[in-house]
Amino acid sequence: MLRTHTCGELRIDNVGEEVILTGWVAKIRDLGPMIFIDLRDRYGITQIRVDVNNFYRNAGSEIIISEMEAKDKKAAFLSKIGREYVLKVSGIVEERSSKNNDIPTGAIEIVVNLSPKSELNASGYAIKNGVHKYIQVLNPSKLPPFLIEDETDGGDDLRMKYRYLDLRRNPVRRNLELRHRVMRETRNYLDGHYFIEVETPVLIKSTPEGARDFVVPSRMNPGEFYALPQSPQTFKQLLMVSGFDKYYQIVKCFRDEDLRADRQPEFTQIDCELSFVTQEDILHTFEGLIHHLFQKVKGINLPKMPRMTYADAMRLYGSDKPDTRFGMQFVELNNLVKNKGFKVFDDAELIVGINAEGAANYTRKQLDELTDFVKRPQIGATGLVYARVNEDGSVKSSVDKFYSPEDLAEWARAFNAKPGDLLLVLAGGKDKTRKALNELRLEMGSRLGLRDKDTFSALWVVDFPLLEWDEETGRYHAMHHPFTSPKPEDLELIDDRPSDIRANAYDMVINGVEVGGGSIRIHDRRLQEQMFRLLGFSNDEAKAQFGFLMEAFEYGAPPHGGIAFGFDRLCSIFGGSDSIRDYIAFPKNNSGRDVMIDAPSPISDTQLDELHIRMRNITAPQGK
Amino acid sequence: MLRTHTCGELRIDNVGEEVILTGWVAKIRDLGPMIFIDLRDRYGITQIRVDVNNFYRNAGSEIIISEMEAKDKKAAFLSKIGREYVLKVSGIVEERSSKNNDIPTGAIEIVVNLSPKSELNASGYAIKNGVHKYIQVLNPSKLPPFLIEDETDGGDDLRMKYRYLDLRRNPVRRNLELRHRVMRETRNYLDGHYFIEVETPVLIKSTPEGARDFVVPSRMNPGEFYALPQSPQTFKQLLMVSGFDKYYQIVKCFRDEDLRADRQPEFTQIDCELSFVTQEDILHTFEGLIHHLFQKVKGINLPKMPRMTYADAMRLYGSDKPDTRFGMQFVELNNLVKNKGFKVFDDAELIVGINAEGAANYTRKQLDELTDFVKRPQIGATGLVYARVNEDGSVKSSVDKFYSPEDLAEWARAFNAKPGDLLLVLAGGKDKTRKALNELRLEMGSRLGLRDKDTFSALWVVDFPLLEWDEETGRYHAMHHPFTSPKPEDLELIDDRPSDIRANAYDMVINGVEVGGGSIRIHDRRLQEQMFRLLGFSNDEAKAQFGFLMEAFEYGAPPHGGIAFGFDRLCSIFGGSDSIRDYIAFPKNNSGRDVMIDAPSPISDTQLDELHIRMRNITAPQGK
Repeated sequence: MLRTHTCGELRIDNVGEEVILTGWVAKIRDLGPMIFIDLRDRYGITQIRVDVNNFYRNAGSEIIISEMEAKDKKAAFLSKIGREYVLKVSGIVEERSSKNNDIPTGAIEIVVNLSPKSELNASGYAIKNGVHKYIQVLNPSKLPPFLIEDETDGGDDLRMKYRYLDLRRNPVRRNLELRHRVMRETRNYLDGHYFIEVETPVLIKSTPEGARDFVVPSRMNPGEFYALPQSPQTFKQLLMVSGFDKYYQIVKCFRDEDLRADRQPEFTQIDCELSFVTQEDILHTFEGLIHHLFQKVKGINLPKMPRMTYADAMRLYGSDKPDTRFGMQFVELNNLVKNKGFKVFDDAELIVGINAEGAANYTRKQLDELTDFVKRPQIGATGLVYARVNEDGSVKSSVDKFYSPEDLAEWARAFNAKPGDLLLVLAGGKDKTRKALNELRLEMGSRLGLRDKDTFSALWVVDFPLLEWDEETGRYHAMHHPFTSPKPEDLELIDDRPSDIRANAYDMVINGVEVGGGSIRIHDRRLQEQMFRLLGFSNDEAKAQFGFLMEAFEYGAPPHGGIAFGFDRLCSIFGGSDSIRDYIAFPKNNSGRDVMIDAPSPISDTQLDELHIRMRNITAPQGK
Repeated sequence: MLRTHTCGELRIDNVGEEVILTGWVAKIRDLGPMIFIDLRDRYGITQIRVDVNNFYRNAGSEIIISEMEAKDKKAAFLSKIGREYVLKVSGIVEERSSKNNDIPTGAIEIVVNLSPKSELNASGYAIKNGVHKYIQVLNPSKLPPFLIEDETDGGDDLRMKYRYLDLRRNPVRRNLELRHRVMRETRNYLDGHYFIEVETPVLIKSTPEGARDFVVPSRMNPGEFYALPQSPQTFKQLLMVSGFDKYYQIVKCFRDEDLRADRQPEFTQIDCELSFVTQEDILHTFEGLIHHLFQKVKGINLPKMPRMTYADAMRLYGSDKPDTRFGMQFVELNNLVKNKGFKVFDDAELIVGINAEGAANYTRKQLDELTDFVKRPQIGATGLVYARVNEDGSVKSSVDKFYSPEDLAEWARAFNAKPGDLLLVLAGGKDKTRKALNELRLEMGSRLGLRDKDTFSALWVVDFPLLEWDEETGRYHAMHHPFTSPKPEDLELIDDRPSDIRANAYDMVINGVEVGGGSIRIHDRRLQEQMFRLLGFSNDEAKAQFGFLMEAFEYGAPPHGGIAFGFDRLCSIFGGSDSIRDYIAFPKNNSGRDVMIDAPSPISDTQLDELHIRMRNITAPQGK
């Protein structure tokens, strides 16, 4: 290699060695008699010291050119290097006079003695002094459009355009190093548990179920398209039919959906499937995976993950992905507050609240903010009722007009509230009110500092409903996907109360984020057909789209189930970030564009012709 | 899990244990008083013994139903199971009376005692006998369309359509297990050498350079398309600019080319790039990788790989990927055979031959076959000259009319031929003749049994030309790709003899197959621009397509280089197969179709509309 050591490698034990380093100029300091250069690479930073005295003295310390000439030489030297230049430096490791304890190489520096005979080379970039002590510019750099430092001055757009420079910054590089580590430990765990990684195809078939597909026109099959997989779902089930028994794949998936900060058109999944298992086996195996990852990557031993039914999660947190880093569980007040003359509560399907412990000192202004918060259109509550528990135990509420001190004392008891607590109550339709109170609970959790990103609380949410009714299309949708099996004991509800059927489906939730989910699958053709009918597929549609899978079920399909983890999301949780983009090397923006390479982009007419397609807004030539 | 053990796990030490196995019925043998079932899963086969005596005796060996009734019970039992049924079997491990040494579980069998009280359960598939000893049908199976055995009777088409059943066969499953092992060991080696795996995007930008792109119309960016990557080339170079230093990725790549047996539209690559390296560093690192893989996966210690220049490979083997499992190097005869009155040789640019050792006994018919072989249009030789070295040392040739015994003795000396050898000589234009003789050499290697698939011969071919002239387009093409750097010492040829410029490019060849290739890249904007000009790009074209890369070169691009290995191909070599399809779970056929899922397929008009495209053969509606 061009170097003998990396910039993160040299220690006090190396003093006296002749070394060659390569890297980027992170900083140049001209301190008169000495020039210091911080040389950076992926592995660290090493200080380079250029002794300016040597610009006019020879090896025997004899002055051989004038101070003025030496100054010119120094100026020429400084003019030839700059921030982010790529250098190759040959010098001697010396002990620093003042140690820098912030970096592992802080005990040493590399001393380069440039003598008056040092010359710029032909390319104008190299300053050499014999074979072993020199500074050579391997490549110069224009001034970067933003600071390549841990804290940068670059805005999002600029950093996206020059992503290759943003990736040079330590925090961004560390995110990808973390990702690599999580990936490696995932494979170590799964390989150790006899899983086989099998690659499934990227060019597959478009199906109308689920999100929108990205499609690929086929040149060899005119009028036909491949689709990019939203997940390898059917393939992994076929692998179970094949007897692969334990499959995994860390795999790119694709969804052509409208984008948000935490969504990307292409994302990575840890995709797994197992045969001859119960739900319990899957929860056990993958709780083990996440424990392994926390242990190996974060050094944290997570406790056993509690299980919560979907019904309880909705009742206690108003969400199927509760943030359980803090309590503040919902308390339903219907039995307590009705028929006291307060029409809002009397008319409400559900009256439900939370106890924001210690927030009784919230000012009028803060309470107004919370009221405004819950009344936002995307949250949609009509108002907020609050009640403070005073130091003397009395309760002061915004609805004192309707409720006696004794009534309010009952509220406090229902919330298990102490002096200093603040009760926040919403009322209205059940689903909407729970959803709104979930938002308020998360907001209060953030305000009260209960959502520390270095604290991790994981749980399983189980017993999801099999179906959800979609008002828009007037039919049932599969809550997980159409291959999820119903709980056998709920099958009798299939005709009369299909929405009450529970599925053998489960999600893993960490800190209020769904990091993974899966189900025990259907492995019986007749049940699968029944499921498709329930979802409004005609027999022909079901057969055209999933005939191959249903046929496979007739050739000895074992009972099987699986799970998939959102890998980008998992990495962002490990890294303590809300944005998955920070953990993707080359993410796309909210319009699905890669602004660095400027994709997507128009293609040539020849390409369109070969693919048998044309753009919709191009009118067909007349008479041709 | 539904089982206590796998079908490959039980040994003599387990005798006496109560176990539960799950798996597929590989074989049923009705031996009168006993029924034997071979139960198969991914891990192996275990024999199940059902003792028919117990059909009419109770636990105390007392006969409680008649022989006739017992026969009915046995018939009912046999009618309820069949090949490829999925069973759950509970029984006791017993020592076999006659051991089967062919399988690891051959010392034991599982004995299931079905008593007369055994009943078919409600679903009609389960035969139970108390809690712990039973055979339960978890799923029945239709008769598979071909035999699920190591040697199958299924043709290619049928096995592609029912790929999930073909994957159930041991040899196919073992191929994918091999693939997993190669993948794991690749990662182990590269992780151990400080490489970081970074995922690069799949939705990128279409470029006209190289093979045809698969494209993906963008819904959010009307009129624009993403392309699927033919390789992550530019991204890995950008990662080097970012300072990632050592990158790898095992990654899917895509080429919309016409397919052959050894080509797939999607394929997997081990993609690597390193900074601050020389060609020597790369050859060393990746020779190490392949040595590691052979050691870990095959238990073979390969010798150090020889280096051969492209020029030598063409001169000695007529190929840039010589099969060096055998010698039979080319011998050029121009100096020896001209001006003796044989016009074919006199007019030829090159007269070149091989010595097929020990083949002097080839019959007239065999020699005619060889002549026909070289005259095939795809090989294109005009004829074949041969010369046999007789036992007495005399040489008998097909051109005795023109050459004296002394001339022919000289030929034999040139070939270092011994009695019993057969010399085969072609003549014509240099390139075409070398190409034809390469084919003949490989054919003779096969015929003489010199191409054993369990013998491995690896080498590096180096010093590839930078450019090749393309007659069709009348311009130079990059032999490797436009980012490959020329050898600095050859740069002076750039204006006058560009085709003589050698590149810092290298291929690894094993057994005549190019398994990997790479180059030291250009990292200087001006040189990259010069390269694009040489390849006929206008400045605007170069900027539109690769502007982001050239701009990146101005912000401190380090010297860098890399390599990519064809992963499917590598696996097929490890497995001793010519076909990469055998190492891909769900391959496509020669028309790019997945016949199992029936993809590609038409998509809906709604989808076309959303993507702003229409099919070319649909005329635009008039007046709308």
